[in-house]
Amino acid sequence: MTDVIIAGIGQTEVGEHWDIGLRDLAFAAIQDAVKDSGGLKPQSLFVGNMLAPNLSNQAHLGVLIADYSGLLGIEAVTIEAAGASGGAALRQGYLAVASGMVDVALVVGVEKFTDKVGPGVDAALATTSDSDFEAIQGMTPAAQAALLMKRYMHENEVPQDGFAGFALTAHANAVANNNAMFRKAIKPETYAKAEMVSDPLNMFDMAPNADGAAAVILTRRDLVPDNVSRPLVKIAGSAASSDTLALHDRKDTLYFDTAQISAGKAMKQAGIILDAIDLFEYHDVFSIYAALQLEAVGFAIKGRGWKLAADGEIGLKGKIPCATMGGMRARGFAGGASGVYQAVDAVTQLRGEAEANQIPNVKTALIQSLGGPASTAVSHVLQRME
Amino acid sequence: MTDVIIAGIGQTEVGEHWDIGLRDLAFAAIQDAVKDSGGLKPQSLFVGNMLAPNLSNQAHLGVLIADYSGLLGIEAVTIEAAGASGGAALRQGYLAVASGMVDVALVVGVEKFTDKVGPGVDAALATTSDSDFEAIQGMTPAAQAALLMKRYMHENEVPQDGFAGFALTAHANAVANNNAMFRKAIKPETYAKAEMVSDPLNMFDMAPNADGAAAVILTRRDLVPDNVSRPLVKIAGSAASSDTLALHDRKDTLYFDTAQISAGKAMKQAGIILDAIDLFEYHDVFSIYAALQLEAVGFAIKGRGWKLAADGEIGLKGKIPCATMGGMRARGFAGGASGVYQAVDAVTQLRGEAEANQIPNVKTALIQSLGGPASTAVSHVLQRME
Repeated sequence: MTDVIIAGIGQTEVGEHWDIGLRDLAFAAIQDAVKDSGGLKPQSLFVGNMLAPNLSNQAHLGVLIADYSGLLGIEAVTIEAAGASGGAALRQGYLAVASGMVDVALVVGVEKFTDKVGPGVDAALATTSDSDFEAIQGMTPAAQAALLMKRYMHENEVPQDGFAGFALTAHANAVANNNAMFRKAIKPETYAKAEMVSDPLNMFDMAPNADGAAAVILTRRDLVPDNVSRPLVKIAGSAASSDTLALHDRKDTLYFDTAQISAGKAMKQAGIILDAIDLFEYHDVFSIYAALQLEAVGFAIKGRGWKLAADGEIGLKGKIPCATMGGMRARGFAGGASGVYQAVDAVTQLRGEAEANQIPNVKTALIQSLGGPASTAVSHVLQRME
Repeated sequence: MTDVIIAGIGQTEVGEHWDIGLRDLAFAAIQDAVKDSGGLKPQSLFVGNMLAPNLSNQAHLGVLIADYSGLLGIEAVTIEAAGASGGAALRQGYLAVASGMVDVALVVGVEKFTDKVGPGVDAALATTSDSDFEAIQGMTPAAQAALLMKRYMHENEVPQDGFAGFALTAHANAVANNNAMFRKAIKPETYAKAEMVSDPLNMFDMAPNADGAAAVILTRRDLVPDNVSRPLVKIAGSAASSDTLALHDRKDTLYFDTAQISAGKAMKQAGIILDAIDLFEYHDVFSIYAALQLEAVGFAIKGRGWKLAADGEIGLKGKIPCATMGGMRARGFAGGASGVYQAVDAVTQLRGEAEANQIPNVKTALIQSLGGPASTAVSHVLQRME
């Protein structure tokens, strides 16, 4: 099978973009990515979006974005898997190029949270859980994450400030990222004094809903323009897995099976073991998710993911750098765009273009996009080619 | 490239399923398809759905359906392209198997219109048009189709009952289809006396919104179980194309570019010309769409698609049989399931299992799924293998 290359990346700043709409956000990221690819012409567009039918009253996004971005006529479709929509769209683009049927695929993740304000946003987010058995009881994703976190802290004797490491790392890494929403480092005291959202989950244990778009261009190696001088990055492994949608149906709510399975498959395809991974972009929409991902993927034993963060081992100079450009916590959570932002961040690192945040000698990155409490997990191994 | 085979088909009756939900509908169709395939085990699930986030407050359908259908752990994702969601999901399943990364893909289309009643349904349908420039003005898909129809009738001097042929054919073909919503033939007088929905579009010029699910199992030829004795059906061609989302942005609103382009590409891939097509499953959610598809694909010259229907040439014994099991008009329009129903109907014909509706000696079928007024078109050529 031919190598699938990420030949171009683009992104908008994540934040509250009151003055522009969904289509403008997507177009900005696409324009960047096409330019970055040396002008490749996409034939297929895969849009990762989580909530536009509810937040923006807009379905049929694929066509809207293709049209508005000057790509009239190309194949265009929306891919949805809750918070993992971006990762799932990346995988569809990968499959399309791998099939040999599509030469150049464009993957764009986009979300516009500010098209709705107030409780409607929580109601929209709740549609990603089991509507009949969870959402209708008033369960929101944040409340659910708080329950998980409380149980985790109880079972593993985690101190009150045990999760601070995730927010501290994210905020430290976002300082130099011009596309991040919060470019300010925080101190342990700041975390300790933060307001509770849903006890024990405080405002630094969750990522802020925000607007943004990120895009990547995928193609076969032989189609990458000759004048591209920087290192090429390929998708060496791609896999997805599903769990029960409702959390109460799981045997062990504190183990993310799908994170383990999809990462394992992607690494197997890439022909690597965990030791080879130089950085991990996890789905830190909640700090408890990040902890459970570190455990499921194998960076920490069960119950000790939080300790890795507390000990500074997920920092840029740590054992396994995570959220290297600020993650979802400090860069901002742009819903269905998140998984594509992960790819953009990993490619930036693998190319050696991460400037102040650059990790030395990176060759292999793992990115993992989650929908709900790992009801969906999509994992990709990205590698710098020699 | 390996042949991609449709190894199993399944469907529910289309109608008002007040007593069961989205997940039950999908499961019923999946169970049928898996059984029909001789027990193939899918690794990937592609759900075609149009409006569940709005109609049923349920996103993240892929995981919900995988879980409920006993397929815990498999890759699962939702594909959305308005009314073409089913066709687009079929294409994603096809690409996955063609890539060699997935051995067995399950494609299910599902829609549950009766989860909402009243004007909310029209508002949900309007999210598939341009929210900022069409829906917000109060334009619904039916009103838009009426405008197209009126202009078409004016330009082409079509008599008042010019479109009757589409409804007459659909209803005649649905009589023997146990899965159809309306199993009753109608007379020209019935059409002529029908109530107007939006002048000149009457209730027989549009398909009834209804609940339903259809499923197909895709695999490589070498994985089809040996004990399958019936003829195999392969996907010989697959293509998709996009146009402007907003109708007012088109140069010629009365020509469906995407229908022409996607059908042309699919036929090219299959290595056939139009003469080879034995039946055409069009997207008759509005009779004007069916007329414009007949013209764009090439079965009629511009402005004369309606005449083909009026002359009885789209009947089971006509020049180009269409809507052979009742189409969307008489079988019912189950939103994102429609494109998968088209595949199920075509496979039924190609296997020679269409009983009273069987077209003799069929070898090649074209199916075409539309989103909006052909803002999206997805075309597949299906062929019986010798």
